[in-house]
Amino acid sequence: MSELKGACVIGQSGGPTSVINSSVLGALETALDNPSITRVFGMAHGIKGLLNDELYDIDKEDREELALLRYTPSSALGSCRYKLADPDVDDTDYKRILEIFKKYDIRYFFYNGGNDSMDTCNKVSKYMMKSGYECRVMGIPKTIDNDLFGTDHCPGFASAAKYIATSCMEIYQDARVYDTGMVCIVEIMGRHAGWLAGAAGLATAMGAGPDLVYLPETDFDMKKFLADVKRIYEEKGNCLVAVSEGIHYADGSFVSEAKTSATDGFGHAQLGGLASMLADTVKNELGCKVRGIELSLLQRCAAHCASKTDVDESYMAGKAAVENAVAGKTDYMPGFQCTRDENGYKCEIELLPLSQVANTEKKVPRDWINEEGNGVNEKFIEYAMPLINGENVGPKVNGLPRFANLKKIKAEA
Amino acid sequence: MSELKGACVIGQSGGPTSVINSSVLGALETALDNPSITRVFGMAHGIKGLLNDELYDIDKEDREELALLRYTPSSALGSCRYKLADPDVDDTDYKRILEIFKKYDIRYFFYNGGNDSMDTCNKVSKYMMKSGYECRVMGIPKTIDNDLFGTDHCPGFASAAKYIATSCMEIYQDARVYDTGMVCIVEIMGRHAGWLAGAAGLATAMGAGPDLVYLPETDFDMKKFLADVKRIYEEKGNCLVAVSEGIHYADGSFVSEAKTSATDGFGHAQLGGLASMLADTVKNELGCKVRGIELSLLQRCAAHCASKTDVDESYMAGKAAVENAVAGKTDYMPGFQCTRDENGYKCEIELLPLSQVANTEKKVPRDWINEEGNGVNEKFIEYAMPLINGENVGPKVNGLPRFANLKKIKAEA
Repeated sequence: MSELKGACVIGQSGGPTSVINSSVLGALETALDNPSITRVFGMAHGIKGLLNDELYDIDKEDREELALLRYTPSSALGSCRYKLADPDVDDTDYKRILEIFKKYDIRYFFYNGGNDSMDTCNKVSKYMMKSGYECRVMGIPKTIDNDLFGTDHCPGFASAAKYIATSCMEIYQDARVYDTGMVCIVEIMGRHAGWLAGAAGLATAMGAGPDLVYLPETDFDMKKFLADVKRIYEEKGNCLVAVSEGIHYADGSFVSEAKTSATDGFGHAQLGGLASMLADTVKNELGCKVRGIELSLLQRCAAHCASKTDVDESYMAGKAAVENAVAGKTDYMPGFQCTRDENGYKCEIELLPLSQVANTEKKVPRDWINEEGNGVNEKFIEYAMPLINGENVGPKVNGLPRFANLKKIKAEA
Repeated sequence: MSELKGACVIGQSGGPTSVINSSVLGALETALDNPSITRVFGMAHGIKGLLNDELYDIDKEDREELALLRYTPSSALGSCRYKLADPDVDDTDYKRILEIFKKYDIRYFFYNGGNDSMDTCNKVSKYMMKSGYECRVMGIPKTIDNDLFGTDHCPGFASAAKYIATSCMEIYQDARVYDTGMVCIVEIMGRHAGWLAGAAGLATAMGAGPDLVYLPETDFDMKKFLADVKRIYEEKGNCLVAVSEGIHYADGSFVSEAKTSATDGFGHAQLGGLASMLADTVKNELGCKVRGIELSLLQRCAAHCASKTDVDESYMAGKAAVENAVAGKTDYMPGFQCTRDENGYKCEIELLPLSQVANTEKKVPRDWINEEGNGVNEKFIEYAMPLINGENVGPKVNGLPRFANLKKIKAEA
């Protein structure tokens, strides 16, 4: 493969995570140090920044400040939810992207996101190939939902999982402090896949977690749920429950329909308010003290509780994307191939074709969930536990985190 | 003062905190090592355990396991919300307490809690004195609400403050990631005092916190609130708001009346649901994307984000209670006297008479809040910032916290 010299651009898309900036850091540092890459640009708010010719000149950033991205949650370059049209129907955006590519001599396109972002990568790459514009495209995985196909797991999942498990362990201590009993219901993110809700089971595996965990991989039955809670509450005097926001009845309708009218840019229903709804239902049925807790945004941005394993792997994914692109690869996403055996846990990069990854959702296998559908079993625990290992301790000022403060200087051609 | 030999009993009461177990550890370790104290008991669920003759034999606990209380949130001995009657009206409970004291030769009574617990201490002490039973009584302060009178601050406040400020900094990063704008409203605990809501201002002081902070020390005006949010949203495209659960209108009624029907054991209204209510109101008024986040129980149990300063001081308070009681003091609570000057921050124990502390609430001074009543000023920041310093890093197993697992062996006389 011949050397391709030119600029690179990197963008972030979709919901942020605690470690998406680690992937970007891995890509940026590798690109800045690579002689084939002439300039390094960041997209302001993902593909929208590219379309609007709003690029940041990363070469002008201070390297020490940039390194703080390792400890900075959320998408430092800004994010967007923007779905590119089918180029056969409307190629306006693609023409514009090509124009910007030519303007800055961009030959490397890196896009850091979930399912929809891999779809964006795939479409951009196909269009460039058709246009005869030489360009290498790599997706960099990111999603707390952990639902990307082909990779053992996704950067961002483990830190959310660690926060969820840690918080559940702490809530477990708190919610049983009185002798008067209480039911506590914790609502966890995850539209269609229960990876995050399942992570609450890690707390249970440590002896201080939810008694019941409900994932969207099985149909939810309100009667059975109430019977489960009643049984445990009568037995123990307390009951801690974790539910995925995406739990649904057998007919497919979400248990919390309250807010399904609002949708995000991709037409996904926006869920929420489930914990309070279930808490009210339990309270009416059992008459006991009930508290609903929604972990909300914190589960995806609590960088202070990030998994070092996750941070290191996220960096590795960003680095691998750049290294492989420079080495001639295109249309891939660096995924993880992992082994868990008597020698411990090992994670290696495996390049996955974008076309295989885009738009497919990976769910928790049914046989990782217990028969009754109210908890995860040892298969889930063995899978997830090694991922949350290690603390990512960043610098503090006055006892509070010191986040990266980028200059974000607008690039000129 | 003559030596008083006998057993000691310690209990925990009221809402738990991340560091209340540090105070208990300070008291227990000091008591276990003191020759005047013959046996060490823990009350199962506070004063209720004493009344029910349910005491734990702390001498039978493993000292290394006990030491893990430093990292274990919530009240390890169990808590209760139980208000002793006025002894002149009904002395049933007091007679029972005296009976239990005699049964176990208890000569030292330590009670770890907030306002109501100091009231309990005061009443028990007065009754014992009247009965001619020699006994020394010490309160050990605890409350995330920080509203105890006479002490610079209360054990538990700083760790909650650190969690709130850290979380607000992380939410700040997350909530401005899209170019489409969002208003985010974070609901923080604090019935009548705004110390915790004010702590969100620490994030602002670090350049990544709420634009607006509302405390219960000033009257809330919905019109002004909406105008404040609108102004900032139009200016910045984003707005992050922190509100105390206890904000109220000029007539004293809580802004969120939804759940005020339920009350805790002391007749305090149980608040909640304010964030969603305000989020709906802002959404209707401004038509923008709004998210309400309730920090809920996590702000009082997130030991993984505890302040080392707080943990150390909490331990010191427990230790001081025992040492001073053995030295002959009774009817005191060890409070903190602090200096903040060019030499830094210094905190020393000062004994406060229980009668002065009980049932008085300390609020945030009006001149620590800005004129408009929508933020804290530098006086608040200078007060609170030194308290949240340092990380309390405990042992981990599989990347998750290792909490104390006490044997809790029932004591026999």
